[in-house]
Amino acid sequence: MTDKKITRYLEDFREGAVLECGSYTFSEAEIIRFASEFDPQPFHIDREAAARSVYGGIIASGWHTVSVMMRLMVDGYITGSSSMGSPGVDQVRWLKPVRPGDTITARAHINAVIPSKSKPDRGIVKSLMEVSNQHDEIVMTVLGMGMYLRRPARNRLYQGSLIKTH
Amino acid sequence: MTDKKITRYLEDFREGAVLECGSYTFSEAEIIRFASEFDPQPFHIDREAAARSVYGGIIASGWHTVSVMMRLMVDGYITGSSSMGSPGVDQVRWLKPVRPGDTITARAHINAVIPSKSKPDRGIVKSLMEVSNQHDEIVMTVLGMGMYLRRPARNRLYQGSLIKTH
Repeated sequence: MTDKKITRYLEDFREGAVLECGSYTFSEAEIIRFASEFDPQPFHIDREAAARSVYGGIIASGWHTVSVMMRLMVDGYITGSSSMGSPGVDQVRWLKPVRPGDTITARAHINAVIPSKSKPDRGIVKSLMEVSNQHDEIVMTVLGMGMYLRRPARNRLYQGSLIKTH
Repeated sequence: MTDKKITRYLEDFREGAVLECGSYTFSEAEIIRFASEFDPQPFHIDREAAARSVYGGIIASGWHTVSVMMRLMVDGYITGSSSMGSPGVDQVRWLKPVRPGDTITARAHINAVIPSKSKPDRGIVKSLMEVSNQHDEIVMTVLGMGMYLRRPARNRLYQGSLIKTH
């Protein structure tokens, strides 16, 4: 990662902006693969048990849906940015099941852009992530945070943090 | 999943209990594999870029750490329970990086056991998940929720929800 690849800094996020992040279709095989590794509950990995469950069939692990949302965010606006990762998220709500064949679409509502008081080279972007399915039903919301370096023209300190100059 | 395999119902969670969920060691290959699929930021997948970043080397995606925590929870106490999934989590905090070779340990503090008012066959267990590394540093906390069926001796309605009797 070199400086010239970064085109989106903290200041380039605008409060109120809506960033479309694209779509992803879940296959049953992917749902079972993810859940077999990370969340092997019967309604995620076992067709027959899932059919007998309240869900009536296999559904994706909520963490699978979150992880796919993250990939859509990375492809949608984080790649090419000064992202330094995240201190956490404030809320995740799984509102409807995601089933094999479902296509989810992720959308970021930029709620706040907050320069750090203690570290003048960076700041936090707060967003509401809305993930909907092919029926325009919201299946998940996430109140997220991302840390980004500020634009170097305003603050050269960035050279001491994300990108070492030696 | 059949009834006889379920040995832990809503009532078997006790407020104030601490459930140890075991440990997992992250390899660099697993960190890169997960992040290449779900969170391909340079400090998760590219050794050289990560070395130049604020992290000084590759770190695991926070969602990878969450997903491993979930697996530890499933193996630790969800398997064999009447788990019906989760409506969401109230907070995730990534407090310290997880690096290749790090071993994390997950521990669930049961904060509340809340029978549902609208659906008498089930209820919510709220927990604080604490995930620490081999230096006893807390690397992540998660305020989680799980939905569980109540014990059938108290409420036979369970047969109409998780397990159909036909």
